[in-house]
Order: sequence, then C-alpha cells, then structure tokens
Amino acid sequence: MNDPKDLTHLTSEGDLHMVDVGDKSVTTRVARAEAVLQMKKETAEAIRARTLKKGDAFTVAKIAGINAAKETARLIPLCHTLPIEKVDVQIEEMDSSTEDARFRIESLVRCEGKTGVEMEALTAVSVAALTFYDMCKAIDREMEVVRIRLIEKRGGKSDFLAEPDSKS
Amino acid sequence: MNDPKDLTHLTSEGDLHMVDVGDKSVTTRVARAEAVLQMKKETAEAIRARTLKKGDAFTVAKIAGINAAKETARLIPLCHTLPIEKVDVQIEEMDSSTEDARFRIESLVRCEGKTGVEMEALTAVSVAALTFYDMCKAIDREMEVVRIRLIEKRGGKSDFLAEPDSKS
Amino acid sequence: MNDPKDLTHLTSEGDLHMVDVGDKSVTTRVARAEAVLQMKKETAEAIRARTLKKGDAFTVAKIAGINAAKETARLIPLCHTLPIEKVDVQIEEMDSSTEDARFRIESLVRCEGKTGVEMEALTAVSVAALTFYDMCKAIDREMEVVRIRLIEKRGGKSDFLAEPDSKS
Amino acid sequence: MNDPKDLTHLTSEGDLHMVDVGDKSVTTRVARAEAVLQMKKETAEAIRARTLKKGDAFTVAKIAGINAAKETARLIPLCHTLPIEKVDVQIEEMDSSTEDARFRIESLVRCEGKTGVEMEALTAVSVAALTFYDMCKAIDREMEVVRIRLIEKRGGKSDFLAEPDSKS
Amino acid sequence: MNDPKDLTHLTSEGDLHMVDVGDKSVTTRVARAEAVLQMKKETAEAIRARTLKKGDAFTVAKIAGINAAKETARLIPLCHTLPIEKVDVQIEEMDSSTEDARFRIESLVRCEGKTGVEMEALTAVSVAALTFYDMCKAIDREMEVVRIRLIEKRGGKSDFLAEPDSKS
Amino acid sequence: MNDPKDLTHLTSEGDLHMVDVGDKSVTTRVARAEAVLQMKKETAEAIRARTLKKGDAFTVAKIAGINAAKETARLIPLCHTLPIEKVDVQIEEMDSSTEDARFRIESLVRCEGKTGVEMEALTAVSVAALTFYDMCKAIDREMEVVRIRLIEKRGGKSDFLAEPDSKS
Repeated sequence: MNDPKDLTHLTSEGDLHMVDVGDKSVTTRVARAEAVLQMKKETAEAIRARTLKKGDAFTVAKIAGINAAKETARLIPLCHTLPIEKVDVQIEEMDSSTEDARFRIESLVRCEGKTGVEMEALTAVSVAALTFYDMCKAIDREMEVVRIRLIEKRGGKSDFLAEPDSKS
Repeated sequence: MNDPKDLTHLTSEGDLHMVDVGDKSVTTRVARAEAVLQMKKETAEAIRARTLKKGDAFTVAKIAGINAAKETARLIPLCHTLPIEKVDVQIEEMDSSTEDARFRIESLVRCEGKTGVEMEALTAVSVAALTFYDMCKAIDREMEVVRIRLIEKRGGKSDFLAEPDSKS
Repeated sequence: MNDPKDLTHLTSEGDLHMVDVGDKSVTTRVARAEAVLQMKKETAEAIRARTLKKGDAFTVAKIAGINAAKETARLIPLCHTLPIEKVDVQIEEMDSSTEDARFRIESLVRCEGKTGVEMEALTAVSVAALTFYDMCKAIDREMEVVRIRLIEKRGGKSDFLAEPDSKS
Repeated sequence: MNDPKDLTHLTSEGDLHMVDVGDKSVTTRVARAEAVLQMKKETAEAIRARTLKKGDAFTVAKIAGINAAKETARLIPLCHTLPIEKVDVQIEEMDSSTEDARFRIESLVRCEGKTGVEMEALTAVSVAALTFYDMCKAIDREMEVVRIRLIEKRGGKSDFLAEPDSKS
Repeated sequence: MNDPKDLTHLTSEGDLHMVDVGDKSVTTRVARAEAVLQMKKETAEAIRARTLKKGDAFTVAKIAGINAAKETARLIPLCHTLPIEKVDVQIEEMDSSTEDARFRIESLVRCEGKTGVEMEALTAVSVAALTFYDMCKAIDREMEVVRIRLIEKRGGKSDFLAEPDSKS
Repeated sequence: MNDPKDLTHLTSEGDLHMVDVGDKSVTTRVARAEAVLQMKKETAEAIRARTLKKGDAFTVAKIAGINAAKETARLIPLCHTLPIEKVDVQIEEMDSSTEDARFRIESLVRCEGKTGVEMEALTAVSVAALTFYDMCKAIDREMEVVRIRLIEKRGGKSDFLAEPDSKS
C-alpha cells in the first residue's frame, strides 16, 4: 500500500498522463465532500441579518458549487469528463461554542461512469466556499476555509467512508 | 464595522448583485493566498520518489492553479472579469515534526484594475490543491486541505496582511 | 396537474437542486424549438442585399446556435451535460404582409440520454437569434425577438407538440 | 439610413468579420434589455407557492443571467470581449388582467470600453428567461418568451431609448 | 470516391450541419496524430539547457494538449462532445542532421463512442505545439509548425494508418 | 542572443511562470499568422463543387478561427487574457502546379495591450485549419497542415516580419 506505483497519474518514469479508463466497468459512482468555512461571529451575524429575508447568499453559493462540479474536467487537468446525473450542495451553519462561527458545505455527486466523481464533489464544495467567501470578504478578510475533504466514495474498485470527527 | 450593510454583494433588501466598480479608480492590485494540503507521511514519500526525477506533479498543479486564476469570473458568479497581468503559484513541502506531511501552495496575482484580485489568488491555490489531491488520491483518500486563506492584499481602499502563525 | 410539487428543481422546502436522473431510462430524446426575430422591412432588405452573395450572416447564426446547444449545461445552472448526437439550425424569412419582416429560426436536437434536450433546442434558437441581431443592430436597434418556444419534444415520460398558429 | 453598408459585420463583398474597434474611444457604455416570459396563471401560482419561502427560483435565474453576460463574447461569434463593470438582473411578475401570467426580466450592463454592451444585456435576459423556463417546464411546456428587446443604450456614437408600450 | 456527397458536414444544397450520429454504433475509437515543430538549433539548445533541470516546458505543453483534447467540441463547431477515456501526449526531439532542430509531438486519444476522435487527437498536438512555441517565442520568432497530421484511426466504418515517411 | 535566460516563461531554476507584464507599456499590438492546409486535388474539387453555392465551409472555418482567438488564454496556459479589438481570418486556395491542392489561412489580430497577440493569431489559423480539416476528413484523411507560422508582429519591444518564400 502507499506504493509509489499507485500514483496513477504518474508513470514509473515520472511522466504524467490521463489514466486510461477504457477497461473499467460502468457502475454507479457516488461521492460526498465537505468544506468548512470559519469566520468571525460578527460576520455570521451580518449574513444572517441580511439573508434571513431571502436566502440569496446561500443560493448563489449552491449554484456556483453545482456549476463548478460540471466544470471539474476543465479545471483539473487529468480529470475525465463525466456525465454527472446529480449534484447537490447544502450549506448550514454549524453549532459552535467557540469564538468563531463556521459554515459547513456538503456536496453529493452521482454518475454512471467508468471513474469516480470524487474530484467533482471536492470541486463543488471548494467553489461554493470561495463564493461564500466572496460575498462576505468586504467585512471579514480573515475568513478561512479550514477543511476540504472527501467524506464518502462508493462505486468502483473500493469504497471509502471518512471517520466522523469533532471538527465537523 | 462588520455592519451588515458592508456585505457588498447584497442590497439592503437582501438582493444579490454584481458590485458596480464603475466609480472605482484603476490601481495596481496584488493579492496573495495560500492553501495547505495535509497527507500521510507515506504519501509524501511516494510523491517525492516519483517526482524527484521530473517534477511533473508540481508542474501540473501549478499550471492548473494559473489557469484557474484566469477562470475565476466564470466560477464565482459575482466576480468581475479582470485583466490579470501576473499569476505565480509555488508549491513546497513544509517542515514538519508531526505525524502528517504538509504541502503549502502560495499564489500571487497582480492586475491594474478597479477591483481586487483576492478571489483570483484564492481560486488559484484551491484548484492547485485539488489537482495535487487528484494526482495522489489513489494512495491516500484521507488527504485534506486544512487551510485556504488570503495572506495579503494591496491596492484599493485598504490593504490587508494576515498574521503569520504556527500553522503555516 | 400544475401541482407545485411538479416544479422539479425545487424541493418542498423551496430549495433548488439539480434533478437526479439516475433512475431514468436512456431513450432517444428529440426536441425542436423556434425563435422569431422581427425587424423593419428595410433591415431585411439590407440583409438580403448583402447576403445574397455569400450567405454568411445565416451561416454565422447557425454556427452560433449549434455551439450554444453544446454549451447549454454551462449556461443553465440546473441542466445536465448531455451527449448531443445531432443539432440542426435552420433560418428562413417568413412570408409577411405586415409592415415588419420576420425571420424564423428552428432547431432540432437529438440525444440518447436520461433527460430531454428541450433546453438545448431553446438555447440554440435563442443564441442564433441574438447573433442575427448582433449582425443587424447597427441599422435597426428596434429589432425584437417576438417568440421563443418549444415546438416538439419526444422521448421520456411524455411527448409534446405545440399547436401550430398564425404567429409562426 | 438602413444602408446595407451599415451592416457592420459584413464587408461590401458579403464577407463577415469582427468589427475593428481600435479607433473608437473609450467611454462609459450602458445598455438595458428586457425579456418577457408568458405562462399559464396556474404555473405562476405554483412558482409563487414554492418560492415565497426562499426566493430560490428568482435567484437562480438572476445568477444565470449575470454569468451569461460575462460569456457573451463566447456565445456571439463576432462580439468583443469587454471588461464589464456592472451587471444587474431583476425579475418581477407583471400586472395582468389577461388569462396568462407574465414575468418580466430586465438587465442593466455597464462598462468602460470601445464598443457597446447591448449584446451583453440581451444575452443576460435571454439566459435568465431560459433558466426560469427550465425550472418550470415540468408543469408548463407551453411557456413562451414573447419578447426580447433592447430598451436603452447610452455611450458611443448614438444613444437609443425604446418606446414604452403596452406590452411591457 | 472523393465524391462531393461524402463531404459529410455539407448537404447537397451546400448547407452545413452537425452530422447525426444517432444510428452509428458505439465502438472503441482510437486516433493518433502528430505535430512537428521546427526551430533553430540554438533554440533547441536553450530549451535543453533550461529544462534539463525540471522538464517543465514539456510538461506544460503536454497538459495544454490534454486539456485541449477535452475542449475540441467547443473549438471545432461541428464536432460532437465525446466521453474521452484516455489522452496521451508525448514530446521528443527528433534526430536531425539538418541545420534546424525539430520536436515531434504525438497524441493518442481513445473513447467508446459513436464517432471518431481524430479531431481530438489533432487538436491535442496542435495546442501542445502552440504552447511550446509560446514558451520559446522570445528567442526564436521563426519557429514553424511544419506538419500536423492524423497518423492512425481505428474504430468506426474504416481504419486508417498513415504511411511512415522521411519527414517524421 | 538565443540566451537561455530569454526563455521568458522559465526562471533560471527552470520554474515556469506567467510573465509579469505589469511594467510593460500599453501600445497597439498587431500580429499576423498563416496556416497552409494541403490536400488531394480531388478533395479541393469536391469542396469547390459543394461550396460554390453558399460558401459555408469557408465561413465555418473563419468563425471557428475568430472564436479561437478569443479563447487563446484558456488554451495556452501561460498566455495573458487580452482585450482583442479586431480579428480577421481569410481563407483562399493557393495557385498550384503540384499534384496537391493547398488552402492558405491568414489571420490578423490587434489589441491595445501590454503584451503581444502572436499566440492569438497563431491559434486562430490553427483552429481554422482544423475546422476545415474536420469538414473534409470524410473524403481525405491524408490532408496535412504543412505550415503554421507567424508572419508579422508589430508593437512592443521589437517588430518582426517573416521572409516571404516559395512555400506560401
């Protein structure tokens, strides 16, 4: 395991290439990812004050995340273009007793294909988080994305489920 | 400060809009951002074993980051299209005494324009980190981006410099 | 019928999402749409005077429409990316006894897929009409698109055929 | 006037080309456009029933329109890429005593440039209307865009203001 | 053979259209193409002097070629969007006794689809060659692409294998 | 001259980067490029037989070339996004006494900017040539692009004019 020869995008000579998925079978591929955006409590309050009325900020971030999932193969050079059948992006404020507020973005992507949709799920939450940042940056430049990770992958050679933890 | 009315993308009715930059002045805008990608020590060793020869993995991530900076206005709905004059992306392994290895990606973006390039700098490091993840995911699905943040902004109404800290 | 719960992109909570087409069957999907562009008779005469020679204006609009069909999922946020197998765009001047001239643009799009190609057909005629407008706007800013509609849809749960009418 | 030689995208031989704007002066360019989408009263009621809660449908259409304005030069072959400084898209239901309901979409686009932003404004309302159609099409395939037109243009060689009329 | 009616993108009336591939069968499609870039010997030496260390120039051109293959249907108006399963781009310096140096770029593209991937393979080598040119143009503006051609096509109605020749 | 340190996209360590054009002055930049596409005489005759009527094939290739010029910065990783003010693409059959027929594509691109438009001009002719190839490939797979080169560059630090020669 963790054998360098499993770095699938690099040949034994260190050459990069796009993995040939021709011999893989078409199965249902699902991936879920999450991003956590941390900001000052006052920033979160300002968001709530403005968006309680119409929810626009959340909708913009969701739309940006969904669109980004469809753009993944254009952003990540060695990714394959996949026929995505579903993208869902949810954003919610996390319970928090600390001095900072946190918003958690979760994506779910599904396709019938020869390779997985992990990168699509990760791209969706990343761009949704950046979009959220963009809308709030005028009042809080110190916001940070403190986590982007894959939380589940099903279909293909092996499944994966991240350990739940205290951070999210 | 942190007044909800400074949420520039949202009107007082909560409507979203693209900020009108027509009255802003054209100045030199610079932004730097960073992303930190954490992985198992074995994963980092595998990368080094493969890429010592040719450096491809780093180059792919850099190119993806540079390209993504140019795509920012298409990914982040309320961003303006800006005439970027320079994008630089650097990736380096961080010193580490912990059980995990960490790679740090830093971007610098510059333009002459009416609005800043913070989102371009953040998009560059985010996509570079995802590209790096993509190339290593076959051997380590538990890699995580543990930080994406703005580290500097110059030009425009106010400058910003993040506090250095132990994390990066 | 016309039950709010059939607004497929909105959940019962009003949340938007990309429809999950995972359980739909792959069938041949066909859609036809039309757009009607109205202009002064003198504008139409100018077009004919110039384009009788080479037909370029019509070709540009057709190409723009075909290209736009392929871009649909990037323009319409909740659309799926579909493997389009055929796009055809035709433009013709309509018979007219009125004081205005009218050009009619019709598209036909076909794919084998899990969801229909109505949006692709509508996008094709819309962008073809805008391209036509672009080429004529210097002499007639009052041109108007007076109709964009779906005229036929086959494949999937139900078929649809618009009523022919006097307008087109 | 209405001289064929004013068809600026076509040379006297009928050849098409991208207009050379090199000698034009940089001025503030503003354009406003509108689209009117007509649907059954029941469809409009379903939209209101669902979106009163969160307004998502309107937000999605607005975002799609803003994004499309930024994509104009990629959709309309002979358009120039312009540094857009502001895009605004508004959607409202029109008063109506007829048997159909109507939603009106208005865009405003502004830039400092050598050529106008009419196509950007028209593209914004067209794509916003198609996006709205997409979200409602499952319950009303007979929706129609009954008007897309330029309502105002300022800057450059000449200004234009459409006549108000009963239709909108 | 060479019958005008085999110009598949043009109807008998000379109208262009996107070929309908609906009735074609899904088979494995492979295409290989090559581009040859010629430059002064001194230019090639400068490239070797700089890139021996890290190989970046070659990697950038490869990545650009792979990305371009995925963009083919957006660049070539009548091309279909295809689910590419593999793209490989290789660059090597050719043996040469002449006064000029030559780099040869070869691509291989594969998909399961209803139409071939020749244009994808040709687009990959063309954009890789242009990218290489871009990186060297400051020292040699007289570089030329002296050949772009299809070298192999398999799958579909007929196979094709170009004759090897002295030029490459 | 031909000093490795003039490879502007590579640092002395061999690192690639996007050139910083911040200190360059804005001047009028013009570039012209050419591509030559060679085919069997019978292929050229078939094109003439079909296109004499409407000229569509030439128009499609021209449009594809113009669009590609606007996409250059997305295709060539280290290129800057430039505000192109004019793109012209012309295609003509070359006189020929040889056994093959040749079509020559010439582009002219102009902008006011801090860096040149050579890559835009080269990309325009390359994609126009590929589009032409696409439309003819069903009857002649042996067509070849036998030349792509810069023929003129004005503006910036130095001008360049290629030597005329017998090949084109």
